[in-house]
Amino acid sequence: MKLTRERLAGLRQIYRDELLERTIPFWLRHGIDCEHGGMLTGLARDGTVIDTDKALWLQGRAVWMFSTLCNTIRRDDAWLEAARSCIGFIRAHGRGPGGKLYFQVTREGAPLRMRRYFFSECFAAMGAAAYAKASGEHCAAEETLGYFSRYIEGMIMPDGVAPKVDAETRPSQGLAAQMMLIVIAQEVRAALGDVAVAGETCSSWVDRAVETIARDFYKPEHGALLETVAPDGSVIDHFDGRTLNPGHAIECAWFILREAKERGGDTRLRQLGLAILDCMWARGWDAEHGGLFSFTDLRELPVQEYTAEMKFWWPHNEAEIATLLAWQLTREPKYAEWFERVRAWSRRVFADPEFGEWFGYAHRDGAIATRLKGNMWKGPFHVPRMMHRCGQIVDELLSETAKTQ
Amino acid sequence: MKLTRERLAGLRQIYRDELLERTIPFWLRHGIDCEHGGMLTGLARDGTVIDTDKALWLQGRAVWMFSTLCNTIRRDDAWLEAARSCIGFIRAHGRGPGGKLYFQVTREGAPLRMRRYFFSECFAAMGAAAYAKASGEHCAAEETLGYFSRYIEGMIMPDGVAPKVDAETRPSQGLAAQMMLIVIAQEVRAALGDVAVAGETCSSWVDRAVETIARDFYKPEHGALLETVAPDGSVIDHFDGRTLNPGHAIECAWFILREAKERGGDTRLRQLGLAILDCMWARGWDAEHGGLFSFTDLRELPVQEYTAEMKFWWPHNEAEIATLLAWQLTREPKYAEWFERVRAWSRRVFADPEFGEWFGYAHRDGAIATRLKGNMWKGPFHVPRMMHRCGQIVDELLSETAKTQ
Repeated sequence: MKLTRERLAGLRQIYRDELLERTIPFWLRHGIDCEHGGMLTGLARDGTVIDTDKALWLQGRAVWMFSTLCNTIRRDDAWLEAARSCIGFIRAHGRGPGGKLYFQVTREGAPLRMRRYFFSECFAAMGAAAYAKASGEHCAAEETLGYFSRYIEGMIMPDGVAPKVDAETRPSQGLAAQMMLIVIAQEVRAALGDVAVAGETCSSWVDRAVETIARDFYKPEHGALLETVAPDGSVIDHFDGRTLNPGHAIECAWFILREAKERGGDTRLRQLGLAILDCMWARGWDAEHGGLFSFTDLRELPVQEYTAEMKFWWPHNEAEIATLLAWQLTREPKYAEWFERVRAWSRRVFADPEFGEWFGYAHRDGAIATRLKGNMWKGPFHVPRMMHRCGQIVDELLSETAKTQ
Repeated sequence: MKLTRERLAGLRQIYRDELLERTIPFWLRHGIDCEHGGMLTGLARDGTVIDTDKALWLQGRAVWMFSTLCNTIRRDDAWLEAARSCIGFIRAHGRGPGGKLYFQVTREGAPLRMRRYFFSECFAAMGAAAYAKASGEHCAAEETLGYFSRYIEGMIMPDGVAPKVDAETRPSQGLAAQMMLIVIAQEVRAALGDVAVAGETCSSWVDRAVETIARDFYKPEHGALLETVAPDGSVIDHFDGRTLNPGHAIECAWFILREAKERGGDTRLRQLGLAILDCMWARGWDAEHGGLFSFTDLRELPVQEYTAEMKFWWPHNEAEIATLLAWQLTREPKYAEWFERVRAWSRRVFADPEFGEWFGYAHRDGAIATRLKGNMWKGPFHVPRMMHRCGQIVDELLSETAKTQ
């Protein structure tokens, strides 16, 4: 299979319509909190607000998404205003004791939940970087570096946050911290250039994260990218250590493939990204019902996580980007085939042509499991990021094929 | 519908076989750790150990279950030995800093995870009480009172454990702490008599918990027993405050019905228990596929918890006890009908006639979602407790009908 010029031209229009007609307007219309600022994400199918609490992850992600649209599509006042509202809300209400960002606050900004990890900082860093570029606000660039340093201190440095599981008895390290380091560094570099944070450039942080992933988390001998390993990279043969997250791994794969592309086709990065995509697609795709499993087991034992067979929306978004990018880098027919497969399955199952945006959670067979459009984890991020990024890749593919004709 | 004498005689045999031939032997054969003591619960379908970590909840529950079999069926050396092994493991390895019990430790007993709540103490108290009676060990009675007091201090007293959500911004209280107080007090009283703990008798603790539940958590005007409410019992109209847990509520209903029965038919308790059972059965039973939903929403809005439509084994165990007990107390045909319905559905979906015990997690349509038999939450508790308690009720019903003939 291949993606023909006709197909690509069709996809260009589809992604543009999906993004700008059916997804972004959903959040602008229903999510923007005109009274208190920021983005409401607890939305029912038709956009009715069913929970007014605000998730800090999603404020940062919204800043990133709307600023990125301004930086790459056009300077649109409504988009910039949405980004400004969300970054303003973070500035006014995000910080808890010691400056650490909350996980969840009320609509008005009163604290509800502080969590141990620094993922609110992760998304705030990405958001502030893109916003600095979109708005030209110098202080947003400063702010970016502050969040990024906090993330590195908390999640990457040896004396950062302690894992939930006793580190004396069973020391471990997690993939999430490393893969998010790649994407923060990539987004900061895209917006502000290859600046230094905590003594190293963004590109150097990418190198360090990729190095750790390749050395400790990717296991060619098992055909898997692990989520949790021992400090020396050895397998922790317990439920948590064996639990694989195909969507997460495939997201990590495209971060690495993006880096390969941005470095002009770096072979090692390209091979690593493709190898992860290949093995985790094989492990994750449900041959019986279609779609990507949420969790699988390294040794194909039963998984403790009982949502393992459910299908979440976001792994399908990540797989759509990863397979399209892999096709762009290789022109291997299997990637075009996987791309079309995950596209078709996710549109059939999750998309909601009636009210826009997507549902988030399906049973194994594809029946929707809860009919909300957003919550403390789902907001204007995975779905529009996929449409935006795939749209960009399609544009590149079309101009590549134009050149070769 | 009614449960005829013939049906009851059949059920007596069925429960006995299910409990003593197909469930208890599964755990004795596969779960007992002869080397390090305690119960391994990370088991695959056929009983193969797939995770050696030990959950403290399940050690306490195993002590309770095996001791209760000794106290009520017969004094069996293997059962007493199983109980002794698990309480010995708790004594040797359960306590963390300050004496608080861990949530999870390694097979050998090294600490893995401490959690904020005192539910390990809850099950240790129930277990130690039943074990004190089964073994005659005086120190186990002392131990019981120690765990019970810690539970009360941590979970019931105003300066106990803080909830996850900021108590200044959104103060709340949870049903679980109150309903587990009922069952601990009932089990301690059953084993040791109506002893005093933290200045009050077990019966008085039951009264206090029932009072709180009736006043703050049960909402006849909404037809629901809530899981999380404000300190004054008002509804917290957010995802968490609206989320109902039908299986949990129905478990609470039978704790209250049991108390009504043990107090010779106390009308107020009986009415409260039946009212909770009635409204939460109506909210929880899936008219389309059968089985009990895991979570529903007070206002029938979409639930944030995306496993809401999954079917877990334990709500069906609790509903089987609750409906049979309700039938015993009322002889209302609907309870016999619900009892037979939940029995049939759960046997068809969860029971594993080939290897014994039950699977734990099904998709909405009843397809099994993960084929393990135990993990850090599922062990020798809900399934055998249901078989044991229903067997007892059936025995009582048979002797009642014998008397009336």
